[in-house]
This record gives sequence, C-alpha cells and structure tokens, in this order.
Amino acid sequence: MPRAPRPFRTHRDSAAEKRGPATAARTMAPGAKKGILERLDAGEIVIGDGGFVFALEKRGYVKAGPWTPEAAAEHPEAVRQLHREFLRAGSSVMQTFTFYASDDKLENRGHTQSFTVADEGDALVAGGVSQTPAYLSCKSEDDVKAIFKKQIDVFVQKNVDVLLAEYFEHVEEAEWAVQVLKSTGKPVAASLCIGPEGDLNGVSPGDCAVRLVKAGAHIVGINCHFDPETCVKTVKMMKEGVEKAGLKAHYICQPLAYHTPDCNCQGFIDLPEFPFGLEPRILTRWDMQKYAREAYNAGIRYIGGCCGFEPYHIRALAEELATERGFLPAGSEKHGTWGAGLEMHTKPWVRARARRDYWEALKPASGRPLCPSMASPDGWGVTKGHADLMQQKEPTSQDQLNALFEKANKIQ
Amino acid sequence: MPRAPRPFRTHRDSAAEKRGPATAARTMAPGAKKGILERLDAGEIVIGDGGFVFALEKRGYVKAGPWTPEAAAEHPEAVRQLHREFLRAGSSVMQTFTFYASDDKLENRGHTQSFTVADEGDALVAGGVSQTPAYLSCKSEDDVKAIFKKQIDVFVQKNVDVLLAEYFEHVEEAEWAVQVLKSTGKPVAASLCIGPEGDLNGVSPGDCAVRLVKAGAHIVGINCHFDPETCVKTVKMMKEGVEKAGLKAHYICQPLAYHTPDCNCQGFIDLPEFPFGLEPRILTRWDMQKYAREAYNAGIRYIGGCCGFEPYHIRALAEELATERGFLPAGSEKHGTWGAGLEMHTKPWVRARARRDYWEALKPASGRPLCPSMASPDGWGVTKGHADLMQQKEPTSQDQLNALFEKANKIQ
Amino acid sequence: MPRAPRPFRTHRDSAAEKRGPATAARTMAPGAKKGILERLDAGEIVIGDGGFVFALEKRGYVKAGPWTPEAAAEHPEAVRQLHREFLRAGSSVMQTFTFYASDDKLENRGHTQSFTVADEGDALVAGGVSQTPAYLSCKSEDDVKAIFKKQIDVFVQKNVDVLLAEYFEHVEEAEWAVQVLKSTGKPVAASLCIGPEGDLNGVSPGDCAVRLVKAGAHIVGINCHFDPETCVKTVKMMKEGVEKAGLKAHYICQPLAYHTPDCNCQGFIDLPEFPFGLEPRILTRWDMQKYAREAYNAGIRYIGGCCGFEPYHIRALAEELATERGFLPAGSEKHGTWGAGLEMHTKPWVRARARRDYWEALKPASGRPLCPSMASPDGWGVTKGHADLMQQKEPTSQDQLNALFEKANKIQ
Amino acid sequence: MPRAPRPFRTHRDSAAEKRGPATAARTMAPGAKKGILERLDAGEIVIGDGGFVFALEKRGYVKAGPWTPEAAAEHPEAVRQLHREFLRAGSSVMQTFTFYASDDKLENRGHTQSFTVADEGDALVAGGVSQTPAYLSCKSEDDVKAIFKKQIDVFVQKNVDVLLAEYFEHVEEAEWAVQVLKSTGKPVAASLCIGPEGDLNGVSPGDCAVRLVKAGAHIVGINCHFDPETCVKTVKMMKEGVEKAGLKAHYICQPLAYHTPDCNCQGFIDLPEFPFGLEPRILTRWDMQKYAREAYNAGIRYIGGCCGFEPYHIRALAEELATERGFLPAGSEKHGTWGAGLEMHTKPWVRARARRDYWEALKPASGRPLCPSMASPDGWGVTKGHADLMQQKEPTSQDQLNALFEKANKIQ
Repeated sequence: MPRAPRPFRTHRDSAAEKRGPATAARTMAPGAKKGILERLDAGEIVIGDGGFVFALEKRGYVKAGPWTPEAAAEHPEAVRQLHREFLRAGSSVMQTFTFYASDDKLENRGHTQSFTVADEGDALVAGGVSQTPAYLSCKSEDDVKAIFKKQIDVFVQKNVDVLLAEYFEHVEEAEWAVQVLKSTGKPVAASLCIGPEGDLNGVSPGDCAVRLVKAGAHIVGINCHFDPETCVKTVKMMKEGVEKAGLKAHYICQPLAYHTPDCNCQGFIDLPEFPFGLEPRILTRWDMQKYAREAYNAGIRYIGGCCGFEPYHIRALAEELATERGFLPAGSEKHGTWGAGLEMHTKPWVRARARRDYWEALKPASGRPLCPSMASPDGWGVTKGHADLMQQKEPTSQDQLNALFEKANKIQ
Repeated sequence: MPRAPRPFRTHRDSAAEKRGPATAARTMAPGAKKGILERLDAGEIVIGDGGFVFALEKRGYVKAGPWTPEAAAEHPEAVRQLHREFLRAGSSVMQTFTFYASDDKLENRGHTQSFTVADEGDALVAGGVSQTPAYLSCKSEDDVKAIFKKQIDVFVQKNVDVLLAEYFEHVEEAEWAVQVLKSTGKPVAASLCIGPEGDLNGVSPGDCAVRLVKAGAHIVGINCHFDPETCVKTVKMMKEGVEKAGLKAHYICQPLAYHTPDCNCQGFIDLPEFPFGLEPRILTRWDMQKYAREAYNAGIRYIGGCCGFEPYHIRALAEELATERGFLPAGSEKHGTWGAGLEMHTKPWVRARARRDYWEALKPASGRPLCPSMASPDGWGVTKGHADLMQQKEPTSQDQLNALFEKANKIQ
Repeated sequence: MPRAPRPFRTHRDSAAEKRGPATAARTMAPGAKKGILERLDAGEIVIGDGGFVFALEKRGYVKAGPWTPEAAAEHPEAVRQLHREFLRAGSSVMQTFTFYASDDKLENRGHTQSFTVADEGDALVAGGVSQTPAYLSCKSEDDVKAIFKKQIDVFVQKNVDVLLAEYFEHVEEAEWAVQVLKSTGKPVAASLCIGPEGDLNGVSPGDCAVRLVKAGAHIVGINCHFDPETCVKTVKMMKEGVEKAGLKAHYICQPLAYHTPDCNCQGFIDLPEFPFGLEPRILTRWDMQKYAREAYNAGIRYIGGCCGFEPYHIRALAEELATERGFLPAGSEKHGTWGAGLEMHTKPWVRARARRDYWEALKPASGRPLCPSMASPDGWGVTKGHADLMQQKEPTSQDQLNALFEKANKIQ
Repeated sequence: MPRAPRPFRTHRDSAAEKRGPATAARTMAPGAKKGILERLDAGEIVIGDGGFVFALEKRGYVKAGPWTPEAAAEHPEAVRQLHREFLRAGSSVMQTFTFYASDDKLENRGHTQSFTVADEGDALVAGGVSQTPAYLSCKSEDDVKAIFKKQIDVFVQKNVDVLLAEYFEHVEEAEWAVQVLKSTGKPVAASLCIGPEGDLNGVSPGDCAVRLVKAGAHIVGINCHFDPETCVKTVKMMKEGVEKAGLKAHYICQPLAYHTPDCNCQGFIDLPEFPFGLEPRILTRWDMQKYAREAYNAGIRYIGGCCGFEPYHIRALAEELATERGFLPAGSEKHGTWGAGLEMHTKPWVRARARRDYWEALKPASGRPLCPSMASPDGWGVTKGHADLMQQKEPTSQDQLNALFEKANKIQ
C-alpha cells in the first residue's frame, strides 16, 4: 500500500537548500541528487515539466512561428519564474530552455535558469535535442550526428542529469540522436512525436520503441503533437513492442495540454486552430488527473507535459499521484483536492461543487455555440521532397504567401 | 486620421527609466506621470490589466475558494513578474493585488509590486475596493462606509493614481463606496459586475450609471461576471443612461476572458464550470481584438480585463488599438500582427495561416465532442436573507456539505 | 382529478363510423359534431395537426420553393393518407390542404381529403387563409379583404367547422382577415407567426392579441416560424395582454417541430438551414411531450403543430395530455408510453431505456462533430419597399441570381 | 460521357403500365422485367428503398420494441402508400414488409403491397430473411436452415425477383441463409450489419465477403447499424477481399439515415439515442447525395437505405446518380436540383440559397446548444451466453427491469 502523502514538499525542505545557494556555473556533482535511472529503477514516479515555448508565448517572451528561445538571455527572470512555478507544481525534472536554439551563446544562457531553479528543489536537469532540418533535407547520417554532437557538448560541460532526444517524427533520426547521446555515458530518454499510426515512414510505435532501446535509450516514449489520451495509447503500444522483443525500458509520456481527437497522423500542427485558436481545447485540471492515472496504470513512470501545459496542469499530475509518490507538491498548499477549496465559498451552490464526483462528471461547455466540436485537419498531401517544403534562407515573399493563401482557400 | 503606431514602446524608453530605479516606498509625486483623467480627457485609450487572482491561481500562488492575496507577501517575485508581463503587454494601469485582503499588513505588501513595476513603465497605479460582506448582511451605511474608509487609507498614504470601486452587485453599495473614494480628491472609477438586466435589485444599467456619476465617479462601467460582448453591451446602456440624463463621464470595461452566452443575471459564478472547468470558454487573441474594437466603437476608453485574462490577451487589446494609441506594446516584438509570425513556418499550410482573414473567420473547435456548447446555470433561487447564504465563521461542516450535495443532485 | 385515459380511441369507435362512409361532398350538418367553441368552452383540449407542405415535401408531393398544394388534385391518396395518420395520432382538427392555393379548382380539391378523413373520426375541419402578397405590396384594405372573401367562399359552401387566419407577420392584415372570417358567423381562430419581439411593425404580442380579439377572433395565438418554447412564451404574452385588457379568448399554439433558439425576429426562414438542412433541429417525441405540458400549463387549449411535424409528434402531444383528455389516440396502440415498448427488447441495455427518466434526461447527440449547435441567421436588413423584395412575374433570371449569390458570399 | 438524364421517369411511362393493372396475386412472369443480375451485369445502378419499420413507426403503424409488421394486414393502405412513395422517389427494388414476421398469414400479407406497387413501376420485388434468435441460442445448422427454408417458401410461391439475406451480425449464420436461398435458383444478395472491425466473432469484412460469395451470393455488402460513410468504407473492404481472392461479385450498401461516427462495433442500437432520440442525427438530402456518389465511386451498384430513410432520401440518391442512370425519378418533378426550387422564393436571401455550393458547404446547426455532438455508446460487455441476453417467453417483469435500471444508472 502506498504511503499517505505528507503535506507539501516545499522548496525549504529540499536537498538543495542544505547545499547552499545554487550558482549558474554548476560546481556540485550531479550525484548529490539521486539520478533519474535510480529513481525509475526504484519504482519512483518522475514528473516532467511543461512546454516552455507555448507558456512563454502567452506571457509575451517567445514569438510564435520562429519559436526561438532568446528570452533565456533577454528576460532571464521570466524564464526563471516559469521554472520555479513548475518546480513548485511538482516537477522532478527541469528541461533547459534551448528548443530550436542554434546560437551557441543562447544555448549557454538557456541552461542557467534551469540549473538555478532545479537546485532550489530536488529536481534534475535535462538537456534535449530535437529533429533537425538537416535530416529532412536528406543530409548524411554523419552530418546529422555531427549536429547532435555539437549541441550536446554544452550539456556535458554543464553536467546535466539526463539527456533527452525528443520531438522526432522519424525513428531513424531519433536512433542517430540516441547513439550520440548514449556516447556521453549519461542516462538517455528518447521520445517521438508520433501517434498510434506510427512514424512518418509508417514504422509502428512498437517497432520504433524496439529500435530506440536497441540504439541505447533507457527511457522511451512520446511527447507533443497529440493529446494525453492518444499519447498514452501510443506509449502502451511501444511498451508492448519492447516487451514482446524481450527487452527492458522505462517509459516517458509528455503530451499536449489540448484535446485533439480530430488530428491526423501529423498531429496538432495540421489542425486549423494551430497555434492561435487552441484555447477551447485546453485540458482542465481534472482531465489532467485522469491522464496521470491512465499513464500510471499503463506502466509509464516519467509523466510530464508539452505545449499548452501551465503550472496548474503539472500540479494536477502531482496531486493525482500524491499517494504513490508519498507527498504533495509545494503548490498544493494553494489548492484543495478535488475542489475542496470551495467549501467556504459564499454561495451554497458553489459550495455544492466541493467534491470529486461533481468535477469528474462535468462535461464543460465551450460557451461557443457557433463553433463545432471537431475540426478537419489540413491535408495537403505535401510530403518530403515537395517544393513547398524546401527550406529557404530568405523570408517567404508576399507572392509566395499569396499563392499559399489561394491554395488554402481552394482546398477549404 | 490616427497616427501610425511606432513599433514597440519598450520599458527602456519609458518615463520611468529616466527617473531611475523604482522603490517600494514611492517617493515620487504622482504628477510626474499624466493622470488618468488627463489621459481620458485628451481622448487617450487607457488599457487595464488582467485579473490577478485567476492568473496566479494557475501559476500556483492563489487558492481558489478563499481567493486571498497572501502571495503578495509570500511570493513577491511571482506577483511582480505578472505585473511586468501585463505592463509589457500594454497595460497603462496596474491594479494593486489586494483583492479581498482583510489583513492590513497584507494590503500593505499588495501595493509594493504594482508600484515597483508601474514605475518601470509609464503606468498608473490603481487601488480598489469591492463589495463587502457587511452590506450583504444588512449593516448600516455608516458601517459599510467605515470599512471602505479604512481600506483606502493605505492607498492614500501610498499615493495611488486612481481609486477604483469595482465588483459591486448592488448599485447602492457602489454609491457609498464612490462617496468615500471621492472624498480623497483622487480620480474615481466605479464598475459594477452586472449584466444588461441590471443590478441584483433590478436597477437598470442606465440608472445605475446615473447614480454612480451623481455620487461622484469620473469613470463608470462594468467588470467581471460576464464575457466581453455582454459587458460592452451593458456599458453601452450605461452610457445611454448618462447621456440621457445630461451628465458626462468616462467609461470602463473589464470583462472576463471567458465566453458566457449562457449566464443568468448573476454571471459566471453560477455556471457549472466555475471555477475549475472554464478552459473551453477562454477567449482567443482574435476574440480579444474584436472586443477591443467593439469597446472602442462604443465610446469606452478604459479597456481592460478581469478573471481569465493572461498577458497575451491584454497585448491583443493593445495591438488592435495600436493605430489609435500611436504605438505597439513592448510585448509585440514577440508577436506578428494577425499571425504574421507564421510566414516562416516550415509547413506551407501553416504559412497559409499568416493572414487576418484566416484568423478572423476561424470558428475554433473544442476537441470535446462529448461536451455541449452551452450550460444551464445553477438557479437555486436562493437570495438575500436565505439561511444558506448566511456567513458563518467556522468552516462548512461535512454535514452541511452533504446537505448541499444532496440538494444539488436533486436540482440537476 | 382528471380521469384515467381509456386505452385508444380508434377510428372504429368514433362518431363518424356510426354515420357511415364519408363523402367528398359533405352532406352532414357540422352540428353533428361538437363545435370547436363548445369543446374549448367546456375545457376540452383540442389537438391540431401538422404542417402538410413540409410533410408532403419529404414524401415527394410538394415542391419546396413554390410550396403549392397541387398534390391535393394530383395525388389525393397521398394527401388522404397523411390526414389519416394525423387523425390516428390524435388530431381533433384537420386543416384543409390549401396553403398558398390560388387556383379555384385546386382549392376545391384541397378540401375533399380533409372532410373525408375528418368524418372517419370525431375531427373537425378547419379552412384557412394566410398573409397575402397584396398586403405586402401595399394594396388597400378593401383589395386585401376582397381576396380573403373570395378564398373563404368555398369554405363556407363546404361548411367547414372553423375558420383559421394563420401565418400573418403583420397584425393589421390579420385583423382584416379576422373581420372577413367573422362575417361568416363561424368560429374564428387567428394565429400570427411572430415571436416575443412582436409583429414586423413592432406591435407587442399582447397588443396584437387584443387587436385580434377586438376584431372578432374567438381563439388567438401563434403558428409556424419558431420552436415550441418560443411560441408558448409568445402566446403567454398574448394571454397576459388579453387579460390585462379585460377581454376573453381561447388560445392556440402551432409551432415548428424544429429547435430554433438562434432565430432572429423573422423566424426560421432566415436560418441558413432553411429549408433543406433542418434535420438536426427536429424535435424528439419527448421534446414534444414537454411542449404539450408547457402549453397546457400556460392555459393554451388548442395545441397543434406546423412545419416539421410528423404524425408521431402529434401523437406525443396526445399522449402527454391523455389523462386530461380522458383517452389515448388510436395510434398509441403502436407506442409504449415513455419507451415502454422497449421492455421486451433483446438487449438488456436497451431494455434499461424503457423508462421515463431515461428519455427525459437524454441530451441527444447530433453525430455531427463538424457542425455547430447554433447558426447565425441571415440579416440582410432588407425590408418592405426594397427592390430585392419586389415580386416579379417572371422567374428570377440567372443574372439576378448571380447578383444575389455574390451578395450572400460577401455578407458571409 | 454519361447521357443526360431525361426528365422524370414517372409511373405512367413505366413498363408496368403497359402491362396493365397489377394484382396482389402475381400472375406475370418475373422475366417480364429485366432481372437484377441482368441490370447489374449491364452496369446499371439499382436503387433500393428505405427501412419500413422506422418509417412506419413515425407514421403510427409499427411499434418500436417488437418492430413487427402486422401493419401489412391491419393497415395495407399505409404500407402501400409508403411503397409508392419510395417507387416515386426512384427505388428499383421494393422489399416486402415482412421483417421479423413469424406468423405465416402475416408474411403472406406483407408481400401483397410490394408486388402491387412494384408492378406500378419498373421495380423488382425482394424477399428477405434476417438473423434468427435460434442461431443466437446456439441451435444447430440444420435447425437454423429449416427456419430460413420455411420463411422463403412464400417468396418462391409468390415468385419474387430477388432473395435477400440481410441484417446478420455473424457471417456463419449468413452463409447458412445464403445456402438456403441459393437453392431456389433465384438471385441472392447477402448483407451483413457489421462495421470495419468485422462481424461479432471478429471475422474481417474482406473474409466475410469471400465466405458469402463462396456460399453462393451474387451480391454482397452491408445494411443497417452504421451511417453511410461507415458502410461504404466496410463494403470497400469487402470488395478488396473478394478481388484479392480472385472472385467476382456485385456490391450492395443499405446504411442508416443517421450519422453515427460514435458507434462501437455493435452499431446504433448501443447509442443512447436509440431508438427515440435519433432525430438530430438524420442525414440531409445533401448528405445523401454525397453518400450516393461515394458508394458509386467505390464500385457499389445496389445503393439503398435502411432505418431512418424517408422517400426524399431515396430521391436524393436517384438525383445524384441521374446522369449515370439516364433519368430522374418521378418524384423529382417536385424537387429542384440542388435547391433550384428556391429561385422564386419571396425573400432574396433565400433565393441566394438556390445553388449547389451553398448546400454542399452548409454545416447544419442542431439548435441544441445543451447537447453534445457525440455520445458514449453503452458498453455493458454482455455477450452471447450471458444471463441478461437469454430470451424469455414472458414479458420482462418490473423486478427484472428495476435491476436493469439500477445497473444502467451505475454504469452511467
């Protein structure tokens, strides 16, 4: 039987506190904290954090479109604050804010905040690489691996706790990444952004997982592109594949915080609402508790989030699994379980909502009677090699845009 | 013709910068900035900020239910960060985070962050009072006014730029508040949380507005409880009433960031989704631009938000009215107008969304095919004087809760 | 307490049966049946029938657009069959199928079927007139009255039981019709196709009703254009007006069988789904029982239907009010009350639906996840006198249509 | 290029007319009309009719639950009228109204109307058998075949044009039926009521089709249980299976007229709306045209309908395929193609709907903002052998029902 959660693991009773103030240049051995594999091998649940680019876009520090992380250098206090909120919400891992970073200096800065904050709590730091334009442009294995190699140098220098190969649509490229990451001797997690139909070359989730484990990943799974329900389903298929092959692994799931039952195989990017009209799809905290339970039941132990996750979403994961983890996150001091905080509300009909069965049964209305519940994803049938997909150095010209607008209008 | 907006009024070119670092104890005369009435009289648009309790609840610093602002003291950096984000998004006014504060020390701290941040830009500080339990418990006019008097003492000491009487369901109590606020000699704004059907005693919006102006308010309008569409409609009715009475005023509108076409007269609190299932109702940035335009067209010049507003919502108001204001907010450096940031997206069908007509026409899907678009608000018919509404000092007991749960199940 | 309904008043035990076979030329005195006013004065409920043009359009005998009743002559067996179905479903009144008939011979034929069938049961025959193009073209009162006079001649000859002035958007024209109908000495019912906002000149429902009663109508109310909820609401307003004026009347309500919460003041014709996409709006039999109860509770005693009503909808009205009427309709021999017929279904989960609370609580899904729940009605702002509204003898030309198509595309 | 349709094949120019009046006792050789296989072999499209039990339930002649066809004897004029409407709408085949008939006399009567009406046009008569309680109760192959044998005796006597084994959930039982039907020497069509997931034993659509063809069916496909989209998809899978196996067949598709994207493998019976709340799911005529085109494109040539189809739905199939067939159905004299009948409507915005692109693009609203778009089907997990599924002679007792109600409430 799991221990009862002790109320609130706050910053103040964390290992970090005992170690004194954190510094941007990490001098402490990572071994001072229990490593991610030790935790997972011991059956612990590791809670991830949420997607930084989407959260910081809403706060005004990241530009949708390029999605680059220059805020790490320009507004370090904003990045640090978000890290702190996720930590407080229960995250055991802080991912460095280096998504799509191509400038070395920027990358360097992207780590500072995560180390600073991770060391305020008992959290680990994860450094990540993602799919490359080079792969999509059919560059050689050596070329692509060289890019990954260069990207992780800084992670190794800074002594991150875990390396993450995430957001890959092709298992082959993810294998290459894993091989590079593995060579550092650090724990490696690999997560694809694919659905139950498999990667973009049609490799099934089970086969993808087997290949990643064979390439050296300790933890395999899914992130981004689909909603929690779909991602858990896909990780289950990966687990079945791994077990069928007689292999062993840990499993990670870091889905969107958006309901996407209407996605095609390329995920939420093809939905007409991406990226500026996704609000009605945002999961509630109760949806998140359901996700945490389903992920746990499926045997997944690294449970986190991606685009759309706000701190209260992570807290909901931590609260759902508080009994299994043995503690509630610090942020729960500001949250009554299953709406208990409403018990003292002035209106009796709101007090009547201070219970689990109310929120579990609620089918929340959208307040949007002119809107449908599902969308038709774009399906241009444009794939690798098509002229429209070729990257160009110059900004898209107005003529090029007009041609696209016309095409879009016709397809609609 | 309005001037073209100059790109980005950032913190760095603000008046505050020239004045050197801000301090928690404000030493500077408020006159160093142009006052709110000067701005409004000159035809300027004043952009408000968003509701702090809801935003900070999602970030983990405020507890839904009591909604008290102790975060101001416990986590000042989190409060300050949110103020900064609203400032960066274009807010001209920072409201002190003192909602429902009853502890003097707390109130005191609640101001610090707003002054600090307001002085980083060209923003004003607003201190506010709201409806009191005392009024609902039928206390005398003198008693209620004494409460307001006590609350504003600290605002006067700290020299706030504008006093705000907001979130009143009964115009009578708002009148009392205005009379107290007016006595300080500072500019007074009064906003009710009512809909087109009038206050809870059935006084029409037009009559409410006339009474508030006669009581001494310089600015009158609506905040909270309803969506932008409903609030603009109600302020319009207030304006008609004021003009019909041969009076003059400025107008304020600070609605929810939730679509609530299905509300009854008491607003979103009675919706079954309040407060933990409101996600599908969140307005997009494009909904916000529509709101800003409609508010402007209705003659409203103090345009802000309340519960549910995130920094990017305020930025959308500032962007819609950039031409009229003559500048874009600092935060727009991270936002392409009408999706322009997507022009360089790798997928051509996403590039095809880099245009106004796409986002204006979009009817966003909820991804929730099992959910309805509208809800039936609670309607217990319980009003002033009913036992269920009487406030009690002790927490609601489990027996009391069970009685409410049963009642709720029956009504459903 | 109302008597328990005796099971099934079938054709065979009806008064008509005793009188022998009906003939197209009615030889029997109408007095052989209890007249409509006798029934209503005695507190009886009179159940109307459904709209013939819509029902026969779906069966293939009426053309949407012109909506003319030539089927009465071309396919008398189809018309007779529909009359029989409504009779069997519980209708106490058969309306002659003469809607928009302009050809004398056609009108003549339009009666035959209703008499034949009415005499198979204990039903009355109603002859009706509706609003005229002449009125909309600003013809004089005398001209318009002459048209009504001519139309009712055949009704008088045929000795119908009640005269009905229905489907009027302007109370003035309805008054004229009532005055003409009244002159025959027959019972007169007048129903407008307006909503709570009043007639197209803005005359309130209450005032409309008073004018119709003063003009001589014994029964006043609403038909067509809006859903049952809206129509009952409007008839209530009419009743309040009549009672306030110290007058007396009976009340009639014959709404659409479509949910139309999104209509503007001109009703369902302006909805984008009219007339070929209304399916998702069709009321269930349980919606109809709710309507019957609400109409009854509102004091309405002539309760029927209009466009969209099928025989099972009428039967639902008769079943809901079976206790009050003292009998079930013949058609109920093929219908278990509140789903009781499912008790012997082979699947246990379908047997579990054989109960009232299941069907009363059901919120039926549309199976249309790409469709919204509400529509934006057309609102061209085109009113009387606008060139687009002028009637022309020739068919609309392709050029004229193209201009309209373009206009529609722009407005959308 | 297909011939242009000649306008309207009416009853009067049909082959039947030349043959003189039809009689209930069919004396004419079936060869007088071109047989179904001759038609299909020649590439002709055969249009089916709609489901009689649902259509007659709405008209008041069939009881939902038992669904027995005693109306054939009790109200022959009502049955005949519905046959006529489908004939007029374009049906090439009239199915005898003998569904679930167990009484010999009743069966006998069930044919009369279809022959009478079929002979008024150029239509064929189809006699059908369906799955038996005997099979579900695990009776032997011989026993089940004996039941089919007995049922078709009357069809053979009456000389129907085609024998139909339809509505089978298990391919094994359908094979047995086909073997019996085949022995008569008449053309045999076999249609299962399964979806893409296969029959209730998990046999794939492709394998099912192969087995039915091998058993002797000339035509194979799907009827009932799912919407057109799902059924066409399933028939496609059947066709692929047949072709892969090197066999040949014709294909039939007779789906529901309800949108059912939310069905599980057992079809619409498990939807909570079955059978009294299905209205919002009814297909429009435009949905039907889409279905006809997709079925045709999939190589299906026997295209009809099942539960929910009204005459205007069948007419829509015939209109969509008018060019391919070379003629429009008689009923199209009362229907303008793609809304053309609206060209002369009095309101210009309704005239603006007289065009194909308007109706093709329309996403019809439900007018039900409190209802969801999709439902959760019942999933009790009760299968063959479970006590709840055992048939009993006596009506379900109130105690038994109460147990079911309780169970249903718990599951919900």
